[in-house]
Amino acid sequence: MGKCSCHPEIETSYICMKHNVYLCEECLKCRDPELFCKFRSSCPIWFIDKKMAGLDEDKKIEKEMFKVIFEPDNKEVEVPKGASLLEAAQKADVHINASCNGKGACGKCKLILKSGSVKKEPTALLSDQEKAKDYVLACQTFVQGDVTVKTPDEIIEKKLKVAGMGKEATDRLKGLVKNIEPMVKEITLELEPPTMDDPVSDLDRLNRGLKKTGCDVSKMNVGIKVMQELAAAMRDENWKVTVSVIRKKCSNEILGVTPGNNRPASLGLAIDVGTTSVVVYLVNMADGSVISAASGHNKQAACGDDVINRIICAEKNGPVKLSKMALATINNLISEALSGADADAGQIKNIVISGNTTMAHLLMKIEPRYIRREPYIPCVSEFPILKAGETGIKADPAAAVFIMPGPAGYVGGDIVSGLIYAGFHREEPLTLFIDVGTNGEIVLGNKDWLMTASCSAGPAFEGGGVRWGMRAEEGAVEKVVIDPETLNPRLSIVGDVKPRGICGSGMIDLISEMLLKKIIEPNGKFRLDASHPRMKKENDELSYIVAFADETSMEEDIVFTETDIHSLVLSKGAIYAGFTVLLNQAGLDFSMVERVIITGGFGQFLDVDKAVNIGMLPDIDRSKFKYLGNSSIAGAYMALLSDEYRQEAGKISNSMTYIDFSGSSMFMDEFTSALFLPHTNVEKFPSVKIG
Amino acid sequence: MGKCSCHPEIETSYICMKHNVYLCEECLKCRDPELFCKFRSSCPIWFIDKKMAGLDEDKKIEKEMFKVIFEPDNKEVEVPKGASLLEAAQKADVHINASCNGKGACGKCKLILKSGSVKKEPTALLSDQEKAKDYVLACQTFVQGDVTVKTPDEIIEKKLKVAGMGKEATDRLKGLVKNIEPMVKEITLELEPPTMDDPVSDLDRLNRGLKKTGCDVSKMNVGIKVMQELAAAMRDENWKVTVSVIRKKCSNEILGVTPGNNRPASLGLAIDVGTTSVVVYLVNMADGSVISAASGHNKQAACGDDVINRIICAEKNGPVKLSKMALATINNLISEALSGADADAGQIKNIVISGNTTMAHLLMKIEPRYIRREPYIPCVSEFPILKAGETGIKADPAAAVFIMPGPAGYVGGDIVSGLIYAGFHREEPLTLFIDVGTNGEIVLGNKDWLMTASCSAGPAFEGGGVRWGMRAEEGAVEKVVIDPETLNPRLSIVGDVKPRGICGSGMIDLISEMLLKKIIEPNGKFRLDASHPRMKKENDELSYIVAFADETSMEEDIVFTETDIHSLVLSKGAIYAGFTVLLNQAGLDFSMVERVIITGGFGQFLDVDKAVNIGMLPDIDRSKFKYLGNSSIAGAYMALLSDEYRQEAGKISNSMTYIDFSGSSMFMDEFTSALFLPHTNVEKFPSVKIG
Repeated sequence: MGKCSCHPEIETSYICMKHNVYLCEECLKCRDPELFCKFRSSCPIWFIDKKMAGLDEDKKIEKEMFKVIFEPDNKEVEVPKGASLLEAAQKADVHINASCNGKGACGKCKLILKSGSVKKEPTALLSDQEKAKDYVLACQTFVQGDVTVKTPDEIIEKKLKVAGMGKEATDRLKGLVKNIEPMVKEITLELEPPTMDDPVSDLDRLNRGLKKTGCDVSKMNVGIKVMQELAAAMRDENWKVTVSVIRKKCSNEILGVTPGNNRPASLGLAIDVGTTSVVVYLVNMADGSVISAASGHNKQAACGDDVINRIICAEKNGPVKLSKMALATINNLISEALSGADADAGQIKNIVISGNTTMAHLLMKIEPRYIRREPYIPCVSEFPILKAGETGIKADPAAAVFIMPGPAGYVGGDIVSGLIYAGFHREEPLTLFIDVGTNGEIVLGNKDWLMTASCSAGPAFEGGGVRWGMRAEEGAVEKVVIDPETLNPRLSIVGDVKPRGICGSGMIDLISEMLLKKIIEPNGKFRLDASHPRMKKENDELSYIVAFADETSMEEDIVFTETDIHSLVLSKGAIYAGFTVLLNQAGLDFSMVERVIITGGFGQFLDVDKAVNIGMLPDIDRSKFKYLGNSSIAGAYMALLSDEYRQEAGKISNSMTYIDFSGSSMFMDEFTSALFLPHTNVEKFPSVKIG
Repeated sequence: MGKCSCHPEIETSYICMKHNVYLCEECLKCRDPELFCKFRSSCPIWFIDKKMAGLDEDKKIEKEMFKVIFEPDNKEVEVPKGASLLEAAQKADVHINASCNGKGACGKCKLILKSGSVKKEPTALLSDQEKAKDYVLACQTFVQGDVTVKTPDEIIEKKLKVAGMGKEATDRLKGLVKNIEPMVKEITLELEPPTMDDPVSDLDRLNRGLKKTGCDVSKMNVGIKVMQELAAAMRDENWKVTVSVIRKKCSNEILGVTPGNNRPASLGLAIDVGTTSVVVYLVNMADGSVISAASGHNKQAACGDDVINRIICAEKNGPVKLSKMALATINNLISEALSGADADAGQIKNIVISGNTTMAHLLMKIEPRYIRREPYIPCVSEFPILKAGETGIKADPAAAVFIMPGPAGYVGGDIVSGLIYAGFHREEPLTLFIDVGTNGEIVLGNKDWLMTASCSAGPAFEGGGVRWGMRAEEGAVEKVVIDPETLNPRLSIVGDVKPRGICGSGMIDLISEMLLKKIIEPNGKFRLDASHPRMKKENDELSYIVAFADETSMEEDIVFTETDIHSLVLSKGAIYAGFTVLLNQAGLDFSMVERVIITGGFGQFLDVDKAVNIGMLPDIDRSKFKYLGNSSIAGAYMALLSDEYRQEAGKISNSMTYIDFSGSSMFMDEFTSALFLPHTNVEKFPSVKIG
């Protein structure tokens, strides 16, 4: 007898003989082979010694199955009795945000129960109003019969607002690339037909033609499929051909030969795979122009908000499932971008992907579990150039896929990509670079050296763990000014619609305004009580009413609670502590920093003054700060067009010194000191006058 | 209206719009999509404009289907009414020799009709005795109802006798390889586990380990599958791993990483894919010993005896079908060799294939049609190293496959392989090299230069086009001495059993003996008439009785006809003319030749004196002749073990000057003069005394 490796609370006598782990009856009954033994992906001879466990070989334990229908798309799925609605939604490919990965802690996975029998766990995360409207949390509601549910309108995700996707921005990007040098080149040739005096083979004839254009054919590889199609391709248009050639580390490869010299434009993709959102640029490789762009939410959100929850999910279900979710997100966006440009996936020959280390591993179905175990190492830091066909990305199967290298488990290719765009590693001034996404990564340095760290800021600034937190999409409060007299807020909303929630820049504004207008104390607690018209008390917790129900799109109060403030203080504290410790490790301090570059999905209106007010950014000359928007997609775009930048990526990744904060007592001290607004030591923030 | 592209005798109005070719109703009705349009393999948008052709879109023209059972294996197949038994046999994967590719000209595709309704074309190629026993020719017999047929016992192919497969021979081969350097190396590593102070990624750790063993990791590629399995492979045996690494032209690649350091022996395959027969050596890559060997008939024989018929068959049916036949042959032999060695296909990591240009193209499913069209060029001369998985060869899918390069359409990798073994291109003496297989290829030269040509000798010496001709397998007459008085022959039979036919060396002996014992004239006609007890007249043709019915295994007379003699005279004439013209092109003559190396499947007992007597070999000092057996498999074995020989293969192929005889009037003159025994000009053969 031992504890089940998936459900440690259960004692069991079934055992996987290879890994010597126990599995409970629940695991044995599971129909999903990937769930059966969590070591399965690494276990070639995985089995259960049923006889030893006293279980009859042929005894099958079948579960009752029930149907779940998801409105408004009417997706239907069968699940065993007792499955949660979240599990059912994942199986049905219905997108539900589940920030906490089904722990019942975030309250985001709301559904409306239309009919059917379920068992519900009690939850404080639904308002009485919501409960009255039959709202349930998908992860806390278990199927007991056929069920029909509906995704609430306010939950259906709206288009993301992604910084830097306008024409002006992409034209500026284009200016950063001097020579366009795609990985896959399309070379047109007009060859001499063979004669008795010139009887070289078709392939030699092709190579001879390529050599004349300057290709180093002594290093040229060619795949079997190309050879199989070669004879016809060369003759179909009378010895005129277009050859796709890829230049790799030191060898070249002929990827394809097609008849004729008139090819449709060759396209490229720059893809930013974020933990939260995914952005795709479709690029004309001839002139570097961004033809169309698309962005959306990473479908992996159904497995939790942050990379840790995604890794846990991959350990349980195998990385393939999460890869499929990311691929579905990416491929939908590619289709959207293609239809926007009236182009065909077969035209896509070059792809650059930028993402954090976990995203890159999951997308490529590479084991991510060791990223979250000491010593926190990735399986792969620098990827070889792959073919689209082997990655599952919608493009010409022979298209080249370059994945941005990342130096560490928690500092990935998205940061390297950001540096390529920011470019401070090519210059003299000492620069602090921070990417506030679902994590918080910091880079310090200049053209001579680079240090980097991850400060576990958490997803609060992207909306995770904040009651009405959301990303910078339609309906998000992105700018707040509070009237000192009435304490009423004046809100700017993304898309000028009724508000649905609050995004990162809005939260920073809110805390800064509440602090300066004395709604909260420096410790983040409210000074006001529930008697003030802008205040509210629910479930024993005080909150500030950002918008009243009749002003909002879902007719509910949008509030900002003490817990929300606490989450954000933890995040800003981690970022500030990260700055401090990294500078300290380099023997420097804030006064020596000549530039602070901020990147991430806050939204367009990040107010640096207010970010200093809350103690997220250091209190130094404001002209030193620069907000770059989404630098990861910008760097991916630059690497897509330029071999120089692709080579630079490897160099950046290899030259970064990674500092691990996880066991650092100095980081803990600095972090604790930074849990005040703006800081325990007010002398560090001389310009912030709380009065 | 136009002529069907498959059946030019039929006028039709159906057309393939892409290729602008006509197809008859027979083609439209065909169920085999590969047979539908012969351009299909090169036609991505292949279709029939049925409307234009006046054919209703949904109208299906179904044919009656009948069942054909093949004894003794009881293989069953359904074919449409009117299909030939040869087509049925090919569909059922029943091996039938069809030297002439179904033209009804060779008489080899004999079957016994047990029951059922058929339509027979009249044929003179079956004896009355055979007709009485219900023998039919498979290609001339058409299904009209359910049919059962049986392969005659004497047709069921026996084990081939392949020269050079004994232990002594392979030990001698082993001595020719100085350093064993496989393409795929298996490197065992014991790595340091990661720590907080050494947090490099798994892949970097692996590369670091490889670098310590001397690998150039800066040129190292790695595939996505390896990365996906890497984390588990490195941890499963506590950071002990075995890495398969392949060295290519200029880059290296990690093919696989497996846990632990105790690997079963790595095996290699040397494969000789002949038009007629296939030989496989299974080799222990650690010490180069040949563990087991197997040989068999190329199943492509069902599509004709020579490369021209194979190409025609591939044009009609696509190269895939012929590739499958060759692969089935090869994979059966691999299984046989593996079971003989009690080894597993997964252990095979290195493969070298030697074959003529057509065999290499067909095996790799590469278009061969331009080999038989002026200017006779191959699609590919020098192949990149492929992976077994993409070729279909039974081995570790990541195993490296090296295909011997070939300089021309009719001088292929088998000849280059033969040179590697013969080695005269490394030495001073002027050497004439001839490979008499299903074709006849000649090389002339030494370490400074190489000239080569193909002399279209035809398959007579391998049994093709000769009534009782067969390969050097069990039951073949391989040595003949004729008593000058009685004119009775004394026969040596392969395997010391009752004779079934005559192989190459036996035919040379027979003609030489018949010439010297005055049974035939120098023009190949019989001096004797049917009254002699050893002579026989059938269908107006005289023949010499080599063995009487009661001495043979199938109780029929084995005879040697005037037509047979004529076929062999054509073959020997082509070979001798080839020698003469090649020497002439080089400004040399026979007196300058210091060595003649003969290779091919004659059998062990090639009698050089007798080959000179018939005028196949030049009349020079007999000590200059050397018979090498199967040099193609020997060279493949050497290249399997040695990188030096693999590199040498490319150099040989590139340095050969190919002389085309196809339009040469000098060749025609020399050929015509050589159609006497030994030659029109007897002065060229002073030692041959016919008396």
